[in-house]
Amino acid sequence: MGAQLTCEIISVGNELLIGKVVNTNASWLAERLTRLGVAVKRITVVGDSLSEIASCVTEALSRKPRYIITTGGLGPTYDDITLEGLARALGKPLILNPEALEMVRRKYEKMGEGLTEARLKMAKMPEGAEPLPNPVGTAPAAKVLLEETVIYALPGVPREMEAIFNETISRDVSRESGFRVAELSLRVTGVKESALAPLISKVKELCPSTYIKSHPKVSEERPLIEIYFNAFHRDEAEAKRIVSEAAEKLTRLIEEAYGKVVSFPEGPNT
Amino acid sequence: MGAQLTCEIISVGNELLIGKVVNTNASWLAERLTRLGVAVKRITVVGDSLSEIASCVTEALSRKPRYIITTGGLGPTYDDITLEGLARALGKPLILNPEALEMVRRKYEKMGEGLTEARLKMAKMPEGAEPLPNPVGTAPAAKVLLEETVIYALPGVPREMEAIFNETISRDVSRESGFRVAELSLRVTGVKESALAPLISKVKELCPSTYIKSHPKVSEERPLIEIYFNAFHRDEAEAKRIVSEAAEKLTRLIEEAYGKVVSFPEGPNT
Repeated sequence: MGAQLTCEIISVGNELLIGKVVNTNASWLAERLTRLGVAVKRITVVGDSLSEIASCVTEALSRKPRYIITTGGLGPTYDDITLEGLARALGKPLILNPEALEMVRRKYEKMGEGLTEARLKMAKMPEGAEPLPNPVGTAPAAKVLLEETVIYALPGVPREMEAIFNETISRDVSRESGFRVAELSLRVTGVKESALAPLISKVKELCPSTYIKSHPKVSEERPLIEIYFNAFHRDEAEAKRIVSEAAEKLTRLIEEAYGKVVSFPEGPNT
Repeated sequence: MGAQLTCEIISVGNELLIGKVVNTNASWLAERLTRLGVAVKRITVVGDSLSEIASCVTEALSRKPRYIITTGGLGPTYDDITLEGLARALGKPLILNPEALEMVRRKYEKMGEGLTEARLKMAKMPEGAEPLPNPVGTAPAAKVLLEETVIYALPGVPREMEAIFNETISRDVSRESGFRVAELSLRVTGVKESALAPLISKVKELCPSTYIKSHPKVSEERPLIEIYFNAFHRDEAEAKRIVSEAAEKLTRLIEEAYGKVVSFPEGPNT
């Protein structure tokens, strides 16, 4: 086993520098990364300033961490400039990324709306960046490789940041750090997502190391909800045990309340 | 009128880097400093490592802020090494400060106890430092001047940090700054952040001395956006006038486009 993987977190936003918002994103990420075997070496908070963001990224790169994760500044407003700052630090142009554009376009199409200049802005990324899907918001995240560092730029809205970390980054990181992921999905037919929410919250409390996320497949009126679980552990069997336990607890709670409505599309233990 | 005073905050502690503790000290200080007219430019979190602390202080000094405030690492245990790191960054020896020693001695005397090696440690400061009394704990804080920067080293226990800030530092800072801040928030219901973005940009152009920041409270699909304004001025009435004007301009633009969707959660002029 090589040296421990390292990470720096860069949180972008004037709201953090005036004390209006407490930096829970950084502590959430630090806690997750620590559990995945990564050593967080530094957390830096800077404002919505192009030169500050760029120099902050440049300084972090000079310390050669394996990962740099930024949060904030990916939205549609004039002061959302993290990707521009990142491009500057990398010496690359900021370009309209076709794949990101398609992600943004589809989000607004679903809402029956078109693209505007402010919405196009969310698809502008440093040249060579890979857009990462945002399952709960509109602004895609971005992944950029530079020599030995992988840079992830995530949105600042906590539930968006958490979903992208859980669904994409945690997989990459755990593969590198020697942690295994166990995943499992179950389907619930005929119960509204809003009715499942308190049961999911309860299981989250009981099983804090399992990530649980519900995805409605059909409308609230005729609901089919897929519930996705994942957990990480150095020992694959232990990771499987952890997700199975959470899935069983949730199944029991749902079936106590609503009867035989749970099925496992890929078998109970994938 | 001079330039706005600036500050960097350096938070020291492994507990912050593993996500065990949320950095509320930094946001508390940032909020206080903002109210006193100081611009917090950067917050950095580092672990209990001599070289990390020293290089972090050296980097902050190179950016020439008026203030550097550190929190954490002043206690009696082996990993409380902030003042040693500070001494290294300043190129000064760490010495037993007689005044600090007296403060520590009296604290333990009151408890009917004497000094030990671990307790003496709390009185060791960079040569030339001024100890600041800790009204609610045992470890004194320290104040060091270096060229145009004033460095304050505060304990990490929130109530100790807050007491020392309130009783000593806030006085120094407000004497120097003479700035007042005015703040205001409004809420917009049912309009997407991406639709508000161009209107905010327009007001930002018209009112360049007002800081404006939108915070989505609910998702883009069912939007509730809080828009926060602040402005600094030596004259409090003028600061209030500046933010009110910006808020009124934005309200007008939004309501012209979307109707009566703006509300003021704390009244129109707080």
